[in-house]
Amino acid sequence: MAELHKILKELIGLTKSEWESFNVKLNKKEFKARTLIIKEGSIAHNLYFIESGTLRTYHLRDGKEISTYFACDKQFISSFSSFITQTASFETLEAIEDSSVYELSYQALTELYKDSSKFEKLGRILAEKNYLCVMDRTLTMQTRTAKEKYLDFIKNYDDDIVQRVPQHMIATFLGIAPESLSRVRKEISIS
Amino acid sequence: MAELHKILKELIGLTKSEWESFNVKLNKKEFKARTLIIKEGSIAHNLYFIESGTLRTYHLRDGKEISTYFACDKQFISSFSSFITQTASFETLEAIEDSSVYELSYQALTELYKDSSKFEKLGRILAEKNYLCVMDRTLTMQTRTAKEKYLDFIKNYDDDIVQRVPQHMIATFLGIAPESLSRVRKEISIS
Repeated sequence: MAELHKILKELIGLTKSEWESFNVKLNKKEFKARTLIIKEGSIAHNLYFIESGTLRTYHLRDGKEISTYFACDKQFISSFSSFITQTASFETLEAIEDSSVYELSYQALTELYKDSSKFEKLGRILAEKNYLCVMDRTLTMQTRTAKEKYLDFIKNYDDDIVQRVPQHMIATFLGIAPESLSRVRKEISIS
Repeated sequence: MAELHKILKELIGLTKSEWESFNVKLNKKEFKARTLIIKEGSIAHNLYFIESGTLRTYHLRDGKEISTYFACDKQFISSFSSFITQTASFETLEAIEDSSVYELSYQALTELYKDSSKFEKLGRILAEKNYLCVMDRTLTMQTRTAKEKYLDFIKNYDDDIVQRVPQHMIATFLGIAPESLSRVRKEISIS
């Protein structure tokens, strides 16, 4: 909890009383690895701040799980388009590891938006971050080789994610075959 | 100008005095068709509100212009990732038709963010809209047939854009060959 307070202080300059009005709206949750937190087709009612653990979103294409986002300790995640539009999600949000998170509901966040411009700023920063991530991934997918994609991934993503997320999930995220990813990782470790 | 005032009143509930502090920061600009407003590699210093006309963003892949976004009358556009990060743009912003726009600089918007939570809300809404657009386009590109892609496009995009944007630009936006788009349009008009 101290971590989230620190992050919000840095990000949006939250005062003690603003933190308290934020804090009371959070619910602590524990998820076992492989728990499906938001299922495709349902509405994402919550945004999650990860205290410890790793979560991902994915969608199904021809029965295959295509990863679309990863987040670990001290990061936010949801099925973001479902969360901001409050419509059915085309993604599933899953815990990859046993995870400890703080949950903030859409309704609670909407109330916070009315309380202070700092929470609007938080909403803006989250939307911008999600935009940049999906834009970067789309461009990378369209224009790069397998090696360039992976180098871009390890540059942009947290070390913890690079280490802790299973390789086959990273491969679908990058739109490359697991064997190509394995070859690229060998090449990089040799060079 | 009255149109922009009306839109902002509806979107973020701008009061008369807030509108005035916004209004003084705008510059009116006219662009001839085919003007490159932001070039790939430069920084997008401005966000544009279109009074009349049509603009698009595109990037080059193997020398081919791939359209990434369209906007027309009463809509906002920029090279959005460059604008929010103030780093070099990977896209070009171009006027497709003779266009009349209001320009708002990044610096001016940053000042407005400090003035009122309503402008933070505007920033959040713009980021969310851009996120939903790119996410939808990415998913559509990956999972739909040419016909589904075009039907999705005419459902989600303004009629004016569907009518006024040249077909070959829509084709690259949807990731389909111009001939496929032409075939699909014929099929739809017959059925």
